[in-house]
Amino acid sequence: MSLLVVGALAYDTVETPSGRVDDILGGAATYFAVGASFFGPVRLVGVVGEDFKHEHRKLLLDQGILLDGLEVRKGKTFRWSGRYAGDMNVAETMATHLNVLDGYEPTVPEAFRDSRFLFLANAPPRTQAHVLDKVPGAFTVLDTMNYWIQETWDDLNEILKRVDMLVCNDQEARALAEDHSLIRAGRKLLKKGPKVVVVKKGEHGAFLWGEDFFHAIPAYPLEHVVDPTGAGDSFAGGLVGSLAASGSTDERSLRRAMIMGAVVASFTVEDFSLRRLRAITRAQVDARYEEFLGFTAHP
Amino acid sequence: MSLLVVGALAYDTVETPSGRVDDILGGAATYFAVGASFFGPVRLVGVVGEDFKHEHRKLLLDQGILLDGLEVRKGKTFRWSGRYAGDMNVAETMATHLNVLDGYEPTVPEAFRDSRFLFLANAPPRTQAHVLDKVPGAFTVLDTMNYWIQETWDDLNEILKRVDMLVCNDQEARALAEDHSLIRAGRKLLKKGPKVVVVKKGEHGAFLWGEDFFHAIPAYPLEHVVDPTGAGDSFAGGLVGSLAASGSTDERSLRRAMIMGAVVASFTVEDFSLRRLRAITRAQVDARYEEFLGFTAHP
Repeated sequence: MSLLVVGALAYDTVETPSGRVDDILGGAATYFAVGASFFGPVRLVGVVGEDFKHEHRKLLLDQGILLDGLEVRKGKTFRWSGRYAGDMNVAETMATHLNVLDGYEPTVPEAFRDSRFLFLANAPPRTQAHVLDKVPGAFTVLDTMNYWIQETWDDLNEILKRVDMLVCNDQEARALAEDHSLIRAGRKLLKKGPKVVVVKKGEHGAFLWGEDFFHAIPAYPLEHVVDPTGAGDSFAGGLVGSLAASGSTDERSLRRAMIMGAVVASFTVEDFSLRRLRAITRAQVDARYEEFLGFTAHP
Repeated sequence: MSLLVVGALAYDTVETPSGRVDDILGGAATYFAVGASFFGPVRLVGVVGEDFKHEHRKLLLDQGILLDGLEVRKGKTFRWSGRYAGDMNVAETMATHLNVLDGYEPTVPEAFRDSRFLFLANAPPRTQAHVLDKVPGAFTVLDTMNYWIQETWDDLNEILKRVDMLVCNDQEARALAEDHSLIRAGRKLLKKGPKVVVVKKGEHGAFLWGEDFFHAIPAYPLEHVVDPTGAGDSFAGGLVGSLAASGSTDERSLRRAMIMGAVVASFTVEDFSLRRLRAITRAQVDARYEEFLGFTAHP
C-alpha cells in the first residue's frame, strides 16, 4: 500500500479523570499514522521543532512510518493542552501554541507523490489544497475542524469538491451541513463533493454515507477510558489504513474499514498518548475486530 | 403469544420543534402495547379516568390489545406534559398530574395470569412486585425511572432479583449501577439479578448484555424526528413483542428483538402520539427491519 498523511505532530499536555501527562507525543498526523501502521507502511509529512525528541522519531520509525517528509524547523514543536471531565466526549482546550506550525506549508517529497491514498489531517483548507495538487492520483480523505468551518467556509467548501471522502465528528458535520439533524447532515455533505462521508460520534460509534448505502456501527464497548485524545485521528488511521491495504474503496472494504477504525480507536483511549497503540500487535487488532463482529452480529 | 403489560395510560401535552399537541393519548403501557401489537395480541392492565375517550379505547382494541384489565376510576386520567428542544434526546417535564394513578394498585384478571411474558412498565417497585406475584410463570421484563431509583432504592433492588430482564435508558442505568461508565454499568446491573439487561440510548441506539454475549445496535437513521415521546416504551414493545411471538429468549431471538425494538421506535417518533404507529402495518415493520440489517451488515 502507499498511504500518505499530511498534518500536525504535537506535544500534548492532557488531564483526564485518570491523571495528567505533560508534553507527551500527540498530534492528528501522529495518531493517524500510528493507527494506520497496523495495515502497512505509512508516509508522513509534517513539521516539528528542534525540541522533537529522538525517542519519538524512533517510535514512529519502529511503527513503519516513513519520515522523509518530516521537516525540522527552528523553534518548538506545536503544543496543545486540554482536559476531559464528565462523560469525556468533548475536550476542553486549555492552550494552543502553534510554534513551528505557524505558517508551515508542507513539502511533499517527490517519492511520496505517487501515493494511492492521501489523508489530509486537520489544517487550513488552502494548505490542504496545495498538498492535494501535489498528489493528484490519490484517493483523498479530508478531515477538518470547527475553526476552519467558521473561519474559512469558502476555502473548505472548495476543497470538498475535490476530495473523495470526508471524515469529521458529529459537531463538525452539523456545522458544515448547517443542519442539526445528523442524518440529514450526512446526506447534505455528500452533495458538497465527497463520494463517502464518515461521521465519528465518539462513544456512540460512527456513520458512513456512501453513494448508494448507509453504514452504522457502535463504538467498541470499553469499561475504562483513560484518555480520549487521538481517538478520532486513530479511527481515521484504522479506517484509511485498512482501505489502503485492501487497495479498494468498494462497499465491502468501507464497511470493514469502519470497524477497523473503531477497533484501533478503542485501543488508543485505553492509555495516554500512543502508549497502548505502541504496545499492541496486528493480531490483537484482528482479534478485537472479530470480537466486534460478534457484538453486532445479525440474528 | 401471551404478553401482558401493566402500567400507565396517559393524556399527554407535548411541545417539540415540530409543534404542540394537547391531551393526546400516551403513557408507557399504551406505547408499549401498541408497539408490541405488531407481533400478536397484547393484554393490558392499567387505569384511566372517566374522561378516557371511546375513540382511544377503540384505537387500542383495533390494534389487538385486550382491555379486560383496564379499570375506569372516578376522576381524570393521568396527565403528563413535557417539551423537547435542541437534540431532543431528553424531555423536560412541565407538569405531572397523577389523578387516577394516585394510589392505584393493578388487578390482574384471572384470565391474564397465565401470561408467558410480562412487561412491568415504570411504576412504584412495590406495585410492580405485587403484579409479579400474580403472574408467576412469566418471563418478566422490568422498566423503571430515576424517581424510583432515588426514592425507593431498596424496593427496586429487591424486585431486580426477581425479574428476568431489565430495560432502562442510559441515565437510569448509570444511576442504578452507580457508575458513570455505561459499559461497566451494564455488567453491574446483570449482577443485581436480571439475566438480560437492555439499555436504550435514544438516537444513539441500544446495548444488550446477556449472560454470555453483548449486543449493540445503532438507532434507525431518521432525517426528521417529530416527537420522541414514547420512543423508549415502544422500543420495549417491539423488543418484548418480538420475543413473545418467537416464544424464545435465546441469543438469536434477543438480537432480532433488539432490532425490532429500534424499528418500532423509529416509527413512533415520526409523528405525535400513536399517529404513525396506528397507520403502519406489520409489512412496513418487516421492511424497515430488512433495511436495518443492511445498515449494519457485516463486511
